[in-house]
Order: sequence, then structure tokens, then C-alpha cells
Amino acid sequence: MKITIAQLNYHIGNFEGNTAGMIVAIEQAKQAKADIICFSELATCGYPPRDFLEFDDFIRLSDECIQTICNHAIDIAVVIGAPSHNKEPKGKSLFNSVYFLADGKVQFVQHKTLLPTYDIFDEYRYFEPAKSWNVVEYKGKKIALTVCEDIWDVGTDDPLYTIIPMDEMMQFQPDFMINVSASPFNYDHARKRIDTVKANVLRYGIPMFYINHCGAQTELIFDGGSLVMSGNGDLYDELPYFQEEIRHYTLDDVKAGGHGNQQPKDKIALIHDAIVMGLKDYFRKLGFTKAVLGLSGGIDSAVTAVLAARALGPENVRVLLMPSQFSTGHSVDDAMGLVKKLGLMHDIIPIKDMYDVFMEKLSPIFGVLPFNVTEENIQARVRGILNMAISNKYGNILLNTTNKSEMAVGYGTLYGDLCGGLSVIGDVYKTEVYELANYINKDEEIIPVNSIIKPPSAELRPGQKDSDSLPEYDALDPILYQYIEKRQGPQDIIDMGYDPALVRRILRLVNINEFKRYQTAPVLRVSPKAFGMGRRMPIVGKYLN
Amino acid sequence: MKITIAQLNYHIGNFEGNTAGMIVAIEQAKQAKADIICFSELATCGYPPRDFLEFDDFIRLSDECIQTICNHAIDIAVVIGAPSHNKEPKGKSLFNSVYFLADGKVQFVQHKTLLPTYDIFDEYRYFEPAKSWNVVEYKGKKIALTVCEDIWDVGTDDPLYTIIPMDEMMQFQPDFMINVSASPFNYDHARKRIDTVKANVLRYGIPMFYINHCGAQTELIFDGGSLVMSGNGDLYDELPYFQEEIRHYTLDDVKAGGHGNQQPKDKIALIHDAIVMGLKDYFRKLGFTKAVLGLSGGIDSAVTAVLAARALGPENVRVLLMPSQFSTGHSVDDAMGLVKKLGLMHDIIPIKDMYDVFMEKLSPIFGVLPFNVTEENIQARVRGILNMAISNKYGNILLNTTNKSEMAVGYGTLYGDLCGGLSVIGDVYKTEVYELANYINKDEEIIPVNSIIKPPSAELRPGQKDSDSLPEYDALDPILYQYIEKRQGPQDIIDMGYDPALVRRILRLVNINEFKRYQTAPVLRVSPKAFGMGRRMPIVGKYLN
Repeated sequence: MKITIAQLNYHIGNFEGNTAGMIVAIEQAKQAKADIICFSELATCGYPPRDFLEFDDFIRLSDECIQTICNHAIDIAVVIGAPSHNKEPKGKSLFNSVYFLADGKVQFVQHKTLLPTYDIFDEYRYFEPAKSWNVVEYKGKKIALTVCEDIWDVGTDDPLYTIIPMDEMMQFQPDFMINVSASPFNYDHARKRIDTVKANVLRYGIPMFYINHCGAQTELIFDGGSLVMSGNGDLYDELPYFQEEIRHYTLDDVKAGGHGNQQPKDKIALIHDAIVMGLKDYFRKLGFTKAVLGLSGGIDSAVTAVLAARALGPENVRVLLMPSQFSTGHSVDDAMGLVKKLGLMHDIIPIKDMYDVFMEKLSPIFGVLPFNVTEENIQARVRGILNMAISNKYGNILLNTTNKSEMAVGYGTLYGDLCGGLSVIGDVYKTEVYELANYINKDEEIIPVNSIIKPPSAELRPGQKDSDSLPEYDALDPILYQYIEKRQGPQDIIDMGYDPALVRRILRLVNINEFKRYQTAPVLRVSPKAFGMGRRMPIVGKYLN
Repeated sequence: MKITIAQLNYHIGNFEGNTAGMIVAIEQAKQAKADIICFSELATCGYPPRDFLEFDDFIRLSDECIQTICNHAIDIAVVIGAPSHNKEPKGKSLFNSVYFLADGKVQFVQHKTLLPTYDIFDEYRYFEPAKSWNVVEYKGKKIALTVCEDIWDVGTDDPLYTIIPMDEMMQFQPDFMINVSASPFNYDHARKRIDTVKANVLRYGIPMFYINHCGAQTELIFDGGSLVMSGNGDLYDELPYFQEEIRHYTLDDVKAGGHGNQQPKDKIALIHDAIVMGLKDYFRKLGFTKAVLGLSGGIDSAVTAVLAARALGPENVRVLLMPSQFSTGHSVDDAMGLVKKLGLMHDIIPIKDMYDVFMEKLSPIFGVLPFNVTEENIQARVRGILNMAISNKYGNILLNTTNKSEMAVGYGTLYGDLCGGLSVIGDVYKTEVYELANYINKDEEIIPVNSIIKPPSAELRPGQKDSDSLPEYDALDPILYQYIEKRQGPQDIIDMGYDPALVRRILRLVNINEFKRYQTAPVLRVSPKAFGMGRRMPIVGKYLN
């Protein structure tokens, strides 16, 4: 028996495009004489479709897509994820299902049992869990079909659910397992996926074919990395990350085992590639090609510009240099160094005249009140207006250049440097931004070294340094990590040896700045806990603040 | 037996404040010789605590609050909602529970079974559902305790769940029911609450005491309206909306039945009162007192200013009049009319000089490209900077004045008129804003009539009217309502008799503007489907656009 894995890049709600892509893959599999081709979870409608699932019209279009694919499931079987209808009067009206199509029609449907509802996942919002399990028989083989999370409660010390669907299916003695997934990237996830698939094949003693999405949907980046594992736990193959790929396997070979190649898993390289794909797909799926961003001469905007140039082509990245009276001379030099290196379209607009007229008009109101964050914010917001003017006039999407450390403690101006359609490095701590810059410069100096080595500064008042108002990033980031990624409380973090006053100050800063994060752009998610949909905090809360 | 209902205003994470408020209520109930006092769902930590629930430290503080309340549960029993720990190794680690405290300790805990996970609710994100049910016996009475949603699958044609917890409890023959809730306001909800409580008492033939939160938590407004209903379906009492209230009941009187007073349920009056409480609590719970907003002379900012003045006091509302070269003379006059009527602090800052310097600096880049939305947005963003400058300098929170119709179709400028910490009327369609204005003016002309009767205009180019780029609001709003509130697809709406081209155009406008709504302020929720946490849409989706 020959099995094809199609690791494709779907687009939410683009039924026509998704269907066409799958039909091409089916034809390719037929040419390779495959018996079965496997797509991913919710492949008809893309993942995550969110509240589009509440529209009958949307589900009808998915049903039509299944019908169309059925017409191509002749001389080949198709495994595909899609919503299906709950015909019982009680419970949610949909299931998240995997269909088995053959001989031109739906032969079998298995519903997903474990509905992830944490972090960025909201599946119980839409779906009823499966309450019965079976396998499908095809060409003399029994196949256990599961959907994504269904295999993730095996091999964990802290099971989130009370049922393990594969345990239920084992009574039917399946020959192998197929898992259709939509499992988003974070820098730790590929390793965990392999561990999870291994825990399953070792528990059940049969091979598994694991098919993931690849491609980004706004903030969520699906890295692919589909897996084939033999029943003895040998990793037979791991598909590439961040690209579509179709591969064919002979079941007997997979059963025989032997180790195939693994993809490299260097954290910073993965983050780099993930962001490039995230950018690429955000623009392509919205029908845009060009970006604009403000280039300050600092490391954050430099890294963002490089990533954008790699994703969109340097000819599609336009930058604005907007020095103020507080900018140091080297800022423009450093920014120009990168402009020349990458060959970016650029404009220089000093902001002083605009800042001055605001201050002149506000002076009758402000009177003798001293310079404070108000004036700093006006500078940042003047830059926001200029960036958005280019964006509006030329159709370039403004990229936000804020890093995760700044976003965490609110070191940024709402409607100023926090403007932008997409936050590129908003899930990358400042200390990781340095690593990313060095990774970009590993073969040659692309980002001017001065942008990397100078002390970080917002340059919004004379001689300002980030460290005037924030702890050094080396001290800040590990505490943020414990609070945000690890959800440790203040005493837990202090018990790790961090300074109590510093811990309390930082946690307070994080919590009083929820209102800013509520209004900032979607953040390309590369860590296990990014700001945005996956982290939901009250604004009026009174906890640690 | 005497039962006290305490309808209190909790604050998320403010364990100290919440505990203190409950202790005062307990003392009052003791003085009234009550046998039992009832608080609401998650009363220790406030609702919705969101991802704070993932912090062990946060749960520990809730546990401590229960301990403290236990110490006051002497000579009185206390019914109170709080998280509790799931001691089983499998499943989520918390339950959403109702505790019965008496004789200084926890006597009984019943977990919530039905975990709302739709619209603004995310409960399955945090909680394991109950799998066993019992009643508590106290002073010779058996009491069935349920939490909010647990009673909502009775009397519906479309049950969302497969179990009805009260059905399970009836085997123990309870004498009456207590339901602790955190059921947020929308203009239809009080009526539905009464229907649901009635469906339960009629099904089980025993009285119910239903205790709701009151008070707002950012976008969610809890209106109170707690209920006491006799076993025969008589509405014995409905507590006031939008205020704290403590009332005492004799069980035998409730059993005897007879109709008590209902609160009035006029939609526009409810919306008015809800927004006033929403504003009041947003400021108070964040520790702020003063607001600022831009007053254009139009109806939206006028209504917002009145609501703010009623919530915060006119002395705490500061307005900016920021006419442009495109503003009509009557705009400033109409705005000044309201300023004088309400006695607001105001400043007038014409924006022309700032706009001109932006255009001068951008002219080398823009060249001969014609005036378009770019220049309109610059005007809106100059106003955004000015509003935020006042906000930053004086600590006034900027109020957003956008209505729901504009938010829906993206008729507003990101980082311009979409600025603000809180969207006051972002869940009120334009046609409803008119109703609200007339309601405000019902006894005297507070909002200048000219603000109400003139054709709506953003005044961002000469002679502009909203109807140049949008359908008339009378045509727009019903279609938006069908799409947003009713989740009807395009064909369903067309089948209702609406113009097909208009329907497609409007639905497309809604969908292509998700990116704007992603970045706008939290919206005070007054309808069954508001923008924000309760409506989750993809940005890169390709559906109806």
C-alpha cells in the first residue's frame, strides 16, 4: 500500500483555492500510484476559521468542497479534515472531523474527541466532541483516523482530558494510524511533536502518518514538519518546515523502520524562517505586495527590515527615516547603512517641524508644565502619521517593529511606534532580537554592527537610554519569560533567586499595560506564549498592580 | 428560613476589596436574622478573570478569600462562587464551583457542569465540567446549588449541552434552588433570564433564588437583576439593574407565590444606563476620574459626552473642538452648545497648521498624486495626537466616540478617530444612536437639535457626507444586524428582500475591515453580539471579500 502526504498551505475561507490545491495534489498522487492521499485538519476551510464556523453558508461551502473532492476520489482514497454536522438535537451543531473518501463518496467520518481550548485554541467554542470511535477498512488494511489534539494526551504527565480516543480505537486492531493536524509553530514545538507521535506509536505498536498544515494565517504560523513514524518508534521521515511538500511512502517500508532524516531545529534559525513565512503569507493572503516601516537606526527596525526584505523582496520594502532633534547623528548613518546594503527605497523626513507646531498649538493649554512622556509620545505619533500616510497613499502595509520585551512592559507609544498592520518581532524578546541580528549577520555584515552594539534608546529626549526607565534587558527578559511563558506568580519567581522588588515592578508593568496590548497589531507567534489571542488578560483587573 | 441575596459589584483580582464587600453584606444579613446569604459566581476573584486563572498564585488568593469568608460563616450559611481544585489527575485542573459555607467551614461544593464557551465566554478554557451532582442539607431543607449556565439548557429548542445538571439533582428531592451567576447585560437579556428561571421552576416545581453580579469589567456590563421565583412560576422579585442591592426573603413567603415587581425593560433606557455604569466602573476600577474626548458637533461625540458627564460628572469631562478647513461653521456652534449646556471644560484647536506642515513635508514624496483618503486620515490622526496629548499630560482617559455602524464597515481612521481607551457607543448602531440622543433629550434639549437632524458627515473634505461612501444608515443597519447579530449569510439576507448588490457590498466591507477592529479599544457591550472578545474573525480570511 502506498500513502501520500500532502503538506499544503491553505487559506481560511478560500474554498476555491484550497480545493484547487488539493485536486492538483490528488492528481500527483495518482500518477505516483498512491492508494491513499492525506490532507490536514479543516483543510477545506483553512485553520483557524474562528467564528466563520457559526455561519451556515460557510459550512455549506465546506460541504461543497468535500463533494468536489469526492469526485476526484476515484482510484484513490482521500483522507481530509473538515467540519461535519451533528445530527443529534443536543450539543454543539458541528464536529471537527476527518473524512475518508473513496469510490467517489464519503466512506467514513471520525470526529475529533479532544478539543483544544487553551492558548490560541478555541475549539470547544464550535465543536461537539466525538462520543464514538471506529476504524475504516480499505484494501485489506484497517486505519485509525484521528485529528490533531486526539493524540496529544498520550505520553504526558498532566493529561488535559479524561478520554484517549486511540485507546478506544485499538479494540478494532488498526494496522496503522493517520493523524490530520493543524499544529502551529513555536520554537519548541517540532521536538514536542516528534515526542508525541513517538509516545503514540510506542503505546500502540503501529506506524503513524502525521500531516500538518504549512503556511501562516495572520499571527499563526504553521510550519509543516509532517511526520512518518514506524511502529517501533523510528522516525522514518520528517517533512520540511515552512514549505509545501508532497511525498509518497510504501507502508511496508515504513513498517520495516529505520531512521530517516530529521529537520534541523536551531531555535533562532527557526524563528527567522517562521517570521519570513509569516510575513510572506500575511501579504499574499491579503492581496498586498509592499511594506513600509520606520527605520530608526536601532536593532529592532533593522531586523524587521531584513526579515521583510527576505519575505517580500527588497524592492517591496520602503523605509522612512524620521530623525528628531533628539536623534543622534549615527542613527541616520546606521539606518542608511542598512538601506544601502539591502537596496531599499527610502525617504528622510525630519519630524521637528511637525513636533514644533503641535507644541506651539498645545502650549496655551500646557502652560509651564514640564516636558514629560506627553512630548515623547507626540514625536512617536508624528512618526506614526507619516508611516501611515505612506501606507495609505501607496498601499504599503505598515510593519510594526516593537519587540516582546517592550510590548510586555508597555515601553512603546500607542498610535505611535505601536502602529502597524502586523507585529513582526512582537514575540521575540530583546535578548533574542540580538541573537536574530547576529544570525542575520552570520556570513556578512548586513545589519550595521553599530546598530547591534550601541545601547538601546528610543531617542525621545536628550541622551535617553532604555535603561533609564527599564531594567537592563538581560535582567528583564528572564523574569518576563517566567511570568508570561511559564505563568509563574511573583513568589515563585522570587524563589528562583530574582530580586523581589524588581520582580514586583516588572509584573506590575506587564499588568498595567494590558490596555496597550489590546490595541496593538496581531503578533507573529513564534514562542509557546505570544501576546494576542493566546493570552487573554483583563484590563480592569487589580492583580499584581 | 430566611434567605439573603447580595447583588454586589466585584472587581477582577481585587480579592481584598471583594472580600471586604462580602463581609459587610454578611454582617447585614446576620442583623436581618438571615439563615443563608448568597453571593454570585466567582465572587472571590470577579468575573471574567480570564488567564489569571492559569496562575497558581491567583487561585491561592481565591482560596484564602474562601477561608476568610468561612470565618464569618458563623450563625449564618454562605453560598459563594469560586474556583476549586480538580484533584483527579486527568482533565483541567480547576472547577468553576459554588461553595456552601457554614459553622466556619466548607460544608459542600458543587461544580459547574455547563461551561459556556461561545461569544464572550471561554469557560472550557479553564474549567473541567462536573461529573457528579448532589444537594446540600441545611436546617432541614435540601438545596440544589447550580452555577449560571447550568440552568440555561432548560426550555430551549436548541440545547447546547448533553446533560442537564438539575435533572441529576432532582433525585435528591431539593426544596429549592440557588443559582449563582455572572450573566452579562445585553438589551434583550433580562427578559431571557426571567424566561429561563421560569422554565426551570416550572420543570422542577420548586422556587429559585438567582443571584447575578452587577458592575462592569472593561467591556462586560453585569446588570444585576437578580431574581426570586416561586415554584409555580410567579416572579416574586426582580432586583434593580446597575446597582448593588441586598434583600432578604422568607422562604415560606416565596413558596406561597404572588407576583412582585418587575424592572422596566425599555431597550434604549437600558442601553443608556448600562453605558453609564460601564463608564463609571471602567474609570473607578482603573483608578482614574477624568475623561477627554473630541467633540465634533456631530451626534456621536455629543451622545458620548453626555453619557460621560452622567457617569463621571461634567467637571471630569474635558472636550477638544478641533475644526479643520473642511469643518462647517455650525459644527463648532453645535459643539459649543453642548459644552455650555453641560458645563464642560473645553479647548478649541484648529488643526489646519498641523495638517499643512504634514502635507508640506510629504509633498516631495506625494508629488502630484490627488487628494484621497490619505489626506482625510491625516486630519483624523492630527486630532488623535491632540486628544492623546491631553490624555497623557493630564491623566484623562480618551473616550472613543465611534458607533457600531462605522466600526462595522471600517468608516473610521485607525490611530485617528479610532483612538481611545474605551469605546463608549461602539456597540450602538447609528440608528440607535439617534434613539439614544432623543432619549437624552426627552425632557429638555441637552444635545443641540441641529447635531441630531443634520446629515452625518466626517467633514474631512469639502461638502462631504457619510452617504457619499456609505449606504444610508436606515439601509445599512438592518443588514449589519442580520450579519453580525444573527449570523446570517449573504443568501439568507438577500432572501429577506434586501438588495443583493448592497448586501454583498456591506458584507465585504465588514470582512475587509477586521484588521481595524483588531486594533480598536474595548467596546462597552450592550447588544447580544458586540465587536471584541465575543466576535472572533480571521484577518487574512478570504470569505465574502
